[in-house]
Amino acid sequence: MCGIVGYIGHRDSQNILVEGLKKLEYRGYDSAGIAVYSDEGLVVRKAKGRLAVLEGQLCEEPIAGSAGIGHTRWATHGKPSDVNSHPHTDEKQKISVVHNGIIENYLPLKEELTAKGYTFVSETDTEVIAHLLADLYEGDIVAAVRAAVKRMRGAFGLGVLAESEPDKLVAVRMHSPLIIGLGENENFIASDIPAILEHTRDVYILNDGEMAILTKDGVTLTDLEGGSISRDAYRVEWDLETAEKGGYEHFMLKEIFEQPRAYRDTMSPRIDGNRVVLPDVGLTADIIRGIRRIHIVACGTASHAGLVGKSVIEQLTRIPVETDVASEYRYRDPIITSDTLVIVVSQSGETADTLAALREAKRQGARVLAVTNVVGSSVAREADHVILTMAGPEIAVASTKAYTTMLIAFYLLGLYMAQTLETVTPAYVADTLAAMQKLPEQVEALLGKADLMKKVAEQFKTTENLFFIGRGLDYAAVVEGSLKLKEISYIHSEAYAAGELKHGTLALITEGTPVIALATQEALFEKTLSNIVEVKARGAVVLGIANEGHTELSKTANETLYIPRTLPLLTPALAAVPLQLLAYYTSLARGNDVDKPRNLAKSVTVE
Amino acid sequence: MCGIVGYIGHRDSQNILVEGLKKLEYRGYDSAGIAVYSDEGLVVRKAKGRLAVLEGQLCEEPIAGSAGIGHTRWATHGKPSDVNSHPHTDEKQKISVVHNGIIENYLPLKEELTAKGYTFVSETDTEVIAHLLADLYEGDIVAAVRAAVKRMRGAFGLGVLAESEPDKLVAVRMHSPLIIGLGENENFIASDIPAILEHTRDVYILNDGEMAILTKDGVTLTDLEGGSISRDAYRVEWDLETAEKGGYEHFMLKEIFEQPRAYRDTMSPRIDGNRVVLPDVGLTADIIRGIRRIHIVACGTASHAGLVGKSVIEQLTRIPVETDVASEYRYRDPIITSDTLVIVVSQSGETADTLAALREAKRQGARVLAVTNVVGSSVAREADHVILTMAGPEIAVASTKAYTTMLIAFYLLGLYMAQTLETVTPAYVADTLAAMQKLPEQVEALLGKADLMKKVAEQFKTTENLFFIGRGLDYAAVVEGSLKLKEISYIHSEAYAAGELKHGTLALITEGTPVIALATQEALFEKTLSNIVEVKARGAVVLGIANEGHTELSKTANETLYIPRTLPLLTPALAAVPLQLLAYYTSLARGNDVDKPRNLAKSVTVE
Repeated sequence: MCGIVGYIGHRDSQNILVEGLKKLEYRGYDSAGIAVYSDEGLVVRKAKGRLAVLEGQLCEEPIAGSAGIGHTRWATHGKPSDVNSHPHTDEKQKISVVHNGIIENYLPLKEELTAKGYTFVSETDTEVIAHLLADLYEGDIVAAVRAAVKRMRGAFGLGVLAESEPDKLVAVRMHSPLIIGLGENENFIASDIPAILEHTRDVYILNDGEMAILTKDGVTLTDLEGGSISRDAYRVEWDLETAEKGGYEHFMLKEIFEQPRAYRDTMSPRIDGNRVVLPDVGLTADIIRGIRRIHIVACGTASHAGLVGKSVIEQLTRIPVETDVASEYRYRDPIITSDTLVIVVSQSGETADTLAALREAKRQGARVLAVTNVVGSSVAREADHVILTMAGPEIAVASTKAYTTMLIAFYLLGLYMAQTLETVTPAYVADTLAAMQKLPEQVEALLGKADLMKKVAEQFKTTENLFFIGRGLDYAAVVEGSLKLKEISYIHSEAYAAGELKHGTLALITEGTPVIALATQEALFEKTLSNIVEVKARGAVVLGIANEGHTELSKTANETLYIPRTLPLLTPALAAVPLQLLAYYTSLARGNDVDKPRNLAKSVTVE
Repeated sequence: MCGIVGYIGHRDSQNILVEGLKKLEYRGYDSAGIAVYSDEGLVVRKAKGRLAVLEGQLCEEPIAGSAGIGHTRWATHGKPSDVNSHPHTDEKQKISVVHNGIIENYLPLKEELTAKGYTFVSETDTEVIAHLLADLYEGDIVAAVRAAVKRMRGAFGLGVLAESEPDKLVAVRMHSPLIIGLGENENFIASDIPAILEHTRDVYILNDGEMAILTKDGVTLTDLEGGSISRDAYRVEWDLETAEKGGYEHFMLKEIFEQPRAYRDTMSPRIDGNRVVLPDVGLTADIIRGIRRIHIVACGTASHAGLVGKSVIEQLTRIPVETDVASEYRYRDPIITSDTLVIVVSQSGETADTLAALREAKRQGARVLAVTNVVGSSVAREADHVILTMAGPEIAVASTKAYTTMLIAFYLLGLYMAQTLETVTPAYVADTLAAMQKLPEQVEALLGKADLMKKVAEQFKTTENLFFIGRGLDYAAVVEGSLKLKEISYIHSEAYAAGELKHGTLALITEGTPVIALATQEALFEKTLSNIVEVKARGAVVLGIANEGHTELSKTANETLYIPRTLPLLTPALAAVPLQLLAYYTSLARGNDVDKPRNLAKSVTVE
């Protein structure tokens, strides 16, 4: 969740660290700091707020030195503040630590160290590591780190610098991503590749339980016992420019408008005439015929894509599908059998809970298929099968194109399984693929109606509570629509299966309460219309969304949006778009930071 | 669910009957009627709708006469309508009947009577009784009632008046409450004491299989064979208000405090030493061994009991369980096979969507088990198997004791299946039953901490947004806790799996946002504590609830409630109680109508 950068080499480290942190800033941004080994020993400079605050301070008072570590923080333990910022140090400022993740047993460790006389200045779990290292240090920082890690439970990526051994930078990965950059007479650590891409394209991707000892001239990889590990460097082929805003005011808007392209990219390599092909996925007919149950496991927006995935796969294949949020799945002792396929979904492929669920499923003998947007991510590496969404880098915290391309991936997977199992006819597959191939231009048509969403956003911008309703696939779609609005507008929005509303939540619908009703499922249109009448009777202001042609909706709803006709199964891939635009314009109208909503981070790599 | 009143004495009966019915109106109110013996013989007046409709008719056109019976109906057989209302009479209007309960064999009786030439005008089971009495009547109404009762199966409380014997009022009780009120030159029958408390405090409480023959001057009690029974009158010491609410300010509070009793009533007939027995449920070992998948289908609060049910059954039996809200299930073409057990859950047993889901499941060949609080309800009648919760009448719209006794029912069912399948050891069953039997007194201990919830309610009463978090079974429990608060306080409350919070909703946590964190699952305590620290870092005001002994919670949460230790599986049955109290006191503090929240109804019998 936080960002880590480290440098050891022949150049001044300060600017390398700050520029690296800038590349990671979207991941965590309530404070930042660096520690540099200078002539005066270890110097730490840190500040609450955006990275620019720290940069300003360093500009006035630079630190010279060619080894350092840096951090941008997303608060987990303790509020955003100067003192809670990283790097943390021991009492004598001899050892400095940056940390990504959570130390679960920090309270007993803190009590133990306090009893030994160590004084804590921050509320963080990270400071425990610094004191623990000081306590264990006997002249060898590598040995101290190894000993400390044995005492720690939880998830962590660490970068450690000791004043007495300024020629070494030590890094450890345990359930929190960390990579090593390999330069000429200089080496780097970072929590993600963009941070160092300006300097090198050759990297080691650390695995859990691995440690790296960096010097100016080389990098040694070991396990936590000190046993050496050899690994080939990975060559990064893509460039940074891809992630820029491309003329849009915000990354989010850019990414919303990229969806026609993203849909095409995700679909086209997998459609061969009237059939789906998944050449690199490795799902053979035998494997598919052996699947009796499917679990879809994910977090947040990805889990909402899973709700659509459940309907799609069940309808097409009649194999029962269960959906779960990963943080629940991994601890609830799920019933996993050898004929269970576990599908994990994660944009970044690094979501901590999803990765842990994947590992738990594999441990119990399940086959795992990953749907992810990032090649080479942990989830992609560890799954048995991978379907890549081709959304391209997604920078805005609120996911848009990653979500909709996950839907496309589920359509492709469902059809692929169904054509193999012959649970649908070849004509059905052909018709569905033809309808899918129309989606990109239908999305373009919907993007052309952005002004209507802007108008509705103006109407809804002052509300503090709002409800979404829908039935069937419309329910799955509004669950995501609601999250989108909530996370960037900060309006307390909640999605309900339309038929459930009167079992409690209807008590909250009063004069002027905005309700967004999605009614694209033809078979359920009248039922949802009845629910719209119910909320209207309590004074709700309703935005109704239905398929073109359902003009009767306009007689009931206050505002109406019609979406192009497609197959009922595919409507979530269209309905998502106006709901994204509504969230975007509402956030904008409320003056929020659209791309970096408060308290949230792009990729949740802690539990 | 219906209400019965009867009078025989020296005064005009009409107003006594109507006033009595008013006291019972909360139990059933889709139609009402009275029959009075007047100068013109038996006169029946009845009307669909609230009692006021009937009252208006009687005001315009009164019936004079000092013997009569009255009824308010809550439809079970046949829709609410004038013709389906009680009292019912035979063809010649010589015998009049009011009836509470269900005649299970009314269809064969109706066929038999129709074959004999009797014509039925209503869709009710009660009309069968009137015709049966006419068929058996040979000049002695007491003998006719005795003979008729022998032919009837089911639950019934009856009041009978015959035109040719206007000095007698006959009453029978069989599995449906009925009491006799003893006055001066007048006597009463009623389905509950409040109906007659204005007139007398001396009552006989009938037992099942007992009959009362009332005249103006006295009451004779007999068994169904005519053997006489002597009984001392019971003196009612409490007043009307207390009689209805049991001394509590609201029905909801009364029902919350009734839970220790309700737990015991639901458990005790099903526990035999160290084993669960479900004698009337009909789930044989063969049936249980044939179940491969379970669907739990319900609406609102009942569906939240189902979330706990899923965990309980999966953990105990390792049979996969899927939960669904009924309004979604019935339309989503669920995968139902002949080895699927569908469990429907409904307090009233009349929830429209749940009933429709039950019918859909049966149509597709599934076996259906119902968990319901109402004997003879539609759901209970149509299911293959029924587990009754013994919560007793629940009047407050916000369900409390019905929910918690549903949990007890799921524990019993899960253990029963597990002991049959031998998926747990006999010792495990014994230990769990022992722990369950401690729950009532543990609930009493929690009820003793109501003041803390009152204090927290005062703190939270001005908020408009609030979040609940929990993991595992704690998540299932807070989903219901949140609904409870929402439906009666009108605060927009939402429950989150604690690990999901940072995937979006954390953006809504700012300075002063109330968060209620439930952390009773020992294995997940540290994880949830981390999530509490996260929301605290954003300024949340946290009420933490954990098991006794977890004093470290007090260091983090603003307010802390400790609940008595029980098995992890059983904690939802304890955690529910403080959350109910919190909802109650918050609603009260906000000046809402606790028992009748706006826009909501007790039993949702429409889609």
